[in-house]
Amino acid sequence: MAKKIAYLGPPGTFTEEAALLYDKSAQLIPFATIAAVATAVASGMAEEGVVAIENSIEGSVTDTLDLLIHESKVLIKKELVLPIEHQLLAKPGTEVSAVEVIYAHPQALGQCRNFIERCFPKVDIVAALSNAAAVEEMMASSYPAAAIGTARAAEIYGAATLARAIQDRASNVTRFVVLATADHPPTGSDKTSLCFSFTEDRPGVLCEVLQEFAQRNINLTKLESRPSKESLGKYIFLVDLEGHRDEPLVSEALERVRDKTALFKIFGSYPRYKEK
Amino acid sequence: MAKKIAYLGPPGTFTEEAALLYDKSAQLIPFATIAAVATAVASGMAEEGVVAIENSIEGSVTDTLDLLIHESKVLIKKELVLPIEHQLLAKPGTEVSAVEVIYAHPQALGQCRNFIERCFPKVDIVAALSNAAAVEEMMASSYPAAAIGTARAAEIYGAATLARAIQDRASNVTRFVVLATADHPPTGSDKTSLCFSFTEDRPGVLCEVLQEFAQRNINLTKLESRPSKESLGKYIFLVDLEGHRDEPLVSEALERVRDKTALFKIFGSYPRYKEK
Repeated sequence: MAKKIAYLGPPGTFTEEAALLYDKSAQLIPFATIAAVATAVASGMAEEGVVAIENSIEGSVTDTLDLLIHESKVLIKKELVLPIEHQLLAKPGTEVSAVEVIYAHPQALGQCRNFIERCFPKVDIVAALSNAAAVEEMMASSYPAAAIGTARAAEIYGAATLARAIQDRASNVTRFVVLATADHPPTGSDKTSLCFSFTEDRPGVLCEVLQEFAQRNINLTKLESRPSKESLGKYIFLVDLEGHRDEPLVSEALERVRDKTALFKIFGSYPRYKEK
Repeated sequence: MAKKIAYLGPPGTFTEEAALLYDKSAQLIPFATIAAVATAVASGMAEEGVVAIENSIEGSVTDTLDLLIHESKVLIKKELVLPIEHQLLAKPGTEVSAVEVIYAHPQALGQCRNFIERCFPKVDIVAALSNAAAVEEMMASSYPAAAIGTARAAEIYGAATLARAIQDRASNVTRFVVLATADHPPTGSDKTSLCFSFTEDRPGVLCEVLQEFAQRNINLTKLESRPSKESLGKYIFLVDLEGHRDEPLVSEALERVRDKTALFKIFGSYPRYKEK
């Protein structure tokens, strides 16, 4: 039986592309929210789930970070990196000069701002809840319309491509994570993701924690903060580091950090993504 | 003549509320994007501009951070903190049980998710480009509809309030900044915001910078990272610290940090917000 993989749908999103890239033979099940994908995995409806965690232009997908911090029992098993190519789609036969309305997810719009401002300075922009929904709504629109969407969405909805690779920066990639009920055994080239917070707020407290890693020559590939949701100015720090939590030096550093922090949660150790 | 203040419009947004709280007698000029607010200030169309920078639940407003990092010649002159109260609005006479569609900005929807899922599990959600646009579109809708909006938007568009304070967490506040062409002279209780990046990626490099502050007993009230937009895994760090850039210890720390970093930019020193 094919493995079941939950993903942030509907079909035609970049997340579906990432899930197909990860496992072509799996049965893909779309869910409407990132929280639903995690619940599907935690409850056994799906064995794995694919969600976006970070884009090289827009930054983190905060829904995914907040889920890993606050709610989920799922762990990160793998990371995937997908180049993001936005296309301008329309109903077949639509002339570029006739376009009055452009449907777009706000993040996709942010990534294509220069193109839209330059080529379509006067169109109305309509917000959509996903890249796929933008294409679906455009196809149903009674006005001459276009949508920012994916090649896969063009295929699914029968849209024509007016322009390709319309994103402002060529180096636009998104990092996805595969969620599962267990993380990944060591491979020799791994990453570990975790979060922590402090009870006391005094100069140097974060630095003391970072030094546990620096002293052991453990490189951090990411450091960021999220609001604790309790009050302004209280943060939870998220760290990605090179190494597996089962490696002795990493394990030792994590134990020391656990002792120095209030909240402490390991999201998982998993193989580093390598370009093919 | 009244001072001209640019803000992220349209009228009825929380930013307008913040601008009114800051200066009731000013002439408020709405702009469609955060970038346009900064350009209005830089070009002299307005003397000051008000934009949101951080929410206690959702986190940073990345458009504002990216503008401060990459584009703007404007500085932060002041910070404001506003409690965020979302309301469920509808056309006068609308019955709660009849509501089929809810218009909402995706961030407002995220802040009211529990309320909406519990009380309106079956409605269609339609994304809007701002909290004010959600109310405007709701008022023009031909379906029985509601919108997540502000008290001020209800006033402007003549909407009725179906429910008050529908946000999931009571402690929901947003921090706004006032942008101007100069920052603020020292008051004795100030903050300074800045960003920096590194050319080399090795263990401990961030820690060395943070220690310049810790050694001088300078407390950081915020540390976060944004993508450099060059490639995945390259970050720019943003720091808020207690103190004014003209104070000797702060000035000394900033000089040392400037020497250790590649990109280095001070966004401004300004009075710390005090609860009234």
